[in-house]
Amino acid sequence: MLNYKAELDRVFHALADPARRAMVERLSQGPVSVSALAKPLPMSLPAVMQHLGVLEAAGLVRSQKRGRVRICAIEAEKLAAVEQWIRARRAEWEQRLDRLGDYLETLKNDGGQDDRKD
Amino acid sequence: MLNYKAELDRVFHALADPARRAMVERLSQGPVSVSALAKPLPMSLPAVMQHLGVLEAAGLVRSQKRGRVRICAIEAEKLAAVEQWIRARRAEWEQRLDRLGDYLETLKNDGGQDDRKD
Repeated sequence: MLNYKAELDRVFHALADPARRAMVERLSQGPVSVSALAKPLPMSLPAVMQHLGVLEAAGLVRSQKRGRVRICAIEAEKLAAVEQWIRARRAEWEQRLDRLGDYLETLKNDGGQDDRKD
Repeated sequence: MLNYKAELDRVFHALADPARRAMVERLSQGPVSVSALAKPLPMSLPAVMQHLGVLEAAGLVRSQKRGRVRICAIEAEKLAAVEQWIRARRAEWEQRLDRLGDYLETLKNDGGQDDRKD
């Protein structure tokens, strides 16, 4: 449980930066080299490497050296963990709205049946 | 676009803390007072107020004074924005896997039809 929490901390933190999200967006379309990943970003290569380190530490991205090139790829499982956490919140929220709806319906029906004056 | 990015920054940052996620989990089940929200958390009321401020700044939670009690409620829209961002990544990822699958299928079929020796 603690591990799961720490994992979510790292993934949410990693995604809280626009440059890192841009990297995840690019990698969702397929693996690329570090230099191709860096090219559209308005920052130095060392800055890109630092962001890549945060994404790798969060388990969102893995990278592998192939000859002289480092290739990065997305790890879809971690994104799925975050999606699952949010979906669980939405499910609770929607259940609550359903219960509220049922309650309002009950009030309406009671109102229709019970219009005596005391 | 810049606003959308800054909004996602704030929401992801707000969710990168286990206490703040616990508060969102609780509020997904329905609105509660600040003191009820603070009760299960192992921290002081000022610390809870600070976390609440981060959640409110991200637009994930709104709070309203009712008499002497401050009631907090979830803002489901912001969670939906994050869910949407992640779902878009998954869609890209799955499309890529589909294309890869199609490509492998093509290779297999070509291999079956074309087994001449040159």
